[in-house]
Amino acid sequence: MRELGVGLIGCGVVGAEVVRGIAEDREVWARRYGVVPVVRRVAVRDTSKRRECKLPLSVLTAHPEDVLADPSVDVVVEATGRVEEARNWMERALDAGKHVVTASKAVLARHMGELLERARSRGLSFGYEATVAGGIPLLRALREGLVAYGITEVAGILNGTTHYMLTRMEQERLPFETALSEAQRAGFAEPDPSEDVSGEDAACKLAVVSRMALALPVTQRDVYKEGIRDVKPRDLRLAVKLGFRVKPMAVARRSAVEGKWELRVHPALVPIESPLGRLALEENGIRVTTERRGDYFFSGRGAGGAPTAGAVLSDLLEVALRPGGPPAVEMADSASTVSSEQFVTGHYVRVAGDAARLRKDLEERDIQVIAAHQEGQEVALVTGRGTPASVLPALAAASGEAPRVWLRVEGDISA
Amino acid sequence: MRELGVGLIGCGVVGAEVVRGIAEDREVWARRYGVVPVVRRVAVRDTSKRRECKLPLSVLTAHPEDVLADPSVDVVVEATGRVEEARNWMERALDAGKHVVTASKAVLARHMGELLERARSRGLSFGYEATVAGGIPLLRALREGLVAYGITEVAGILNGTTHYMLTRMEQERLPFETALSEAQRAGFAEPDPSEDVSGEDAACKLAVVSRMALALPVTQRDVYKEGIRDVKPRDLRLAVKLGFRVKPMAVARRSAVEGKWELRVHPALVPIESPLGRLALEENGIRVTTERRGDYFFSGRGAGGAPTAGAVLSDLLEVALRPGGPPAVEMADSASTVSSEQFVTGHYVRVAGDAARLRKDLEERDIQVIAAHQEGQEVALVTGRGTPASVLPALAAASGEAPRVWLRVEGDISA
Repeated sequence: MRELGVGLIGCGVVGAEVVRGIAEDREVWARRYGVVPVVRRVAVRDTSKRRECKLPLSVLTAHPEDVLADPSVDVVVEATGRVEEARNWMERALDAGKHVVTASKAVLARHMGELLERARSRGLSFGYEATVAGGIPLLRALREGLVAYGITEVAGILNGTTHYMLTRMEQERLPFETALSEAQRAGFAEPDPSEDVSGEDAACKLAVVSRMALALPVTQRDVYKEGIRDVKPRDLRLAVKLGFRVKPMAVARRSAVEGKWELRVHPALVPIESPLGRLALEENGIRVTTERRGDYFFSGRGAGGAPTAGAVLSDLLEVALRPGGPPAVEMADSASTVSSEQFVTGHYVRVAGDAARLRKDLEERDIQVIAAHQEGQEVALVTGRGTPASVLPALAAASGEAPRVWLRVEGDISA
Repeated sequence: MRELGVGLIGCGVVGAEVVRGIAEDREVWARRYGVVPVVRRVAVRDTSKRRECKLPLSVLTAHPEDVLADPSVDVVVEATGRVEEARNWMERALDAGKHVVTASKAVLARHMGELLERARSRGLSFGYEATVAGGIPLLRALREGLVAYGITEVAGILNGTTHYMLTRMEQERLPFETALSEAQRAGFAEPDPSEDVSGEDAACKLAVVSRMALALPVTQRDVYKEGIRDVKPRDLRLAVKLGFRVKPMAVARRSAVEGKWELRVHPALVPIESPLGRLALEENGIRVTTERRGDYFFSGRGAGGAPTAGAVLSDLLEVALRPGGPPAVEMADSASTVSSEQFVTGHYVRVAGDAARLRKDLEERDIQVIAAHQEGQEVALVTGRGTPASVLPALAAASGEAPRVWLRVEGDISA
């Protein structure tokens, strides 16, 4: 039986799941694909620490160099969660003629271009399915066909932590801090949740997807982002009354400005009766809109040990069956993103006023009102699509004050 | 630029979309993959008929043999909708050293084993992504990873026509015949809808999925099937009151009987608040349950020209990039399906009686009642999971009559 020699750098939650997965899936690999994965070397910070997986002591080492230098290692799985060190190890693995599989979105979002080119020029595979929505074989689906249909938009929920929090805040009227503690207890939020809450995590994933599916040479710094910290339970509830739910959205969309793209991560209202609006808690989901073959929708669990390990294993399988991997993506010449003033979305606002009068006044100003709800002295309403400048000043003029709360609205909206 | 010579047999709805798609996607293929698809020969029944796509007259022929004999054709797309003739053409294409891509589920469900083996032994690709849920890259996702996680169940809505009909019957309280005419007008049902309505179409798709994902050597004849003709609008409505929706389900599940499988197509209640329960109209969706990495869920449009052509194009791309294709699936020794008496599901019944008394009576007989609803002299209720024999006789005894209506219940059900 042919063997695929696997080396790991890092054996935390994901790494340990990968080691377990290799043992568990071995028999299916042998039967269906005629090849078995074998763990040959694992570098960890502390070789004496107890691990959540069985490994012979002889396989463990404290030195990543040992993994890179081991001639019996065909493919290196990088699962450390670090950034610049991880990049360095991956580069050296490729230089040593080894395929690489990684789960590190932070590295990919920053250095995807160089890493893929380095792999390509050496005829090696570089697998990164695990960096975005581990529980959904999204990158593979994009690469294997959808890219050819002319993708005009990729929009979805790519961060399970904030989705869990917003869902619980709406369901139980929890304030932000309580929802965060709950997410931490449930194992969906890190002890330091800032990357999730700020949108940084989703921005990294969106950068990877944008490079891969849209051929945009971007990094996470090209993605506009707003976190969910200012979202109030009251607006989550009012959104539902208007037929919407607030979701932590990540959107890459062809801009109305010719040749440019909107790349953005922010909370947004989406229609309850839409594929994304129907998701809840830690679920991830992505809608891919194509020019020529309509929409595709994928959903599944967000990150976490098992689904992420699953994505790593599917990359390992690809290395085993098709070493050298898919052709590199030819990038567009420049990033060409628009700034936030040019984003075209619907708008949710909460303002003082009378719903009926506001609606009439706005319609006279050519602002379409999709839904409005009066609550005490305040009105919550959703407008049709436009740039902020085309809608918000008219709203302020109509209500006599600047909106007290403003959120973007995504998806198919019509009155 | 490298070219992939494409020949088509059949140029109806799907074939014409494929021809259009090849022209439309050509530029993306060239840029991203360094290869362009070129239509070299197209066999049609009537070469003088007007087509929905542009083709030079010189390419058209009335003889499939011309496609098979053309040395400039690398891959034959079979899109005739016929069965035994189509099988013959595909075999001869493989014998002539050409890769094959097909959208014909009826052929695959019957002859998949022989066709795949013939392709494998000649080192040729055989693409059939388009045979199941064209708008969802399902087979690829299964093959590229999920199969390795130990699949215990594939359950979903694989027929868009009956899903459309059941949705409209529930929404508008339409009788079966009205919903059928509407589906035909909307282009979702064939003039002869019997394959959809009887469950035959879904059974073919389930057979293909079962062979591919579960390595079961089955054909569509091994799939138990019930059509949707007897489903009443009244029960669709009562199901909603109980928290369920009736969906045209196709299920392949590891049986409680060791080493055996349930393969079945029938209408069933699923919880409204579940990924499948949330789908509507012509949408398709599939939940894949794995032993080791949890659930995966996919949804998208059902069959139809554009999504089916998309699936064919993704197969063509695979032929272009990786001729010879994925390794053949090693089959289990025998089909090992259980008969319908051994299916384990929840049960929906409508009987005469009093809800409270019936619930108490059933619970004394150790039948779990998930939900019950009284309407006039009748009770609609959903029980926990069991074989028909473990539940229905107790129900009859408790209510004093055989159930007036009985349907299976799928998905996570608990009180």
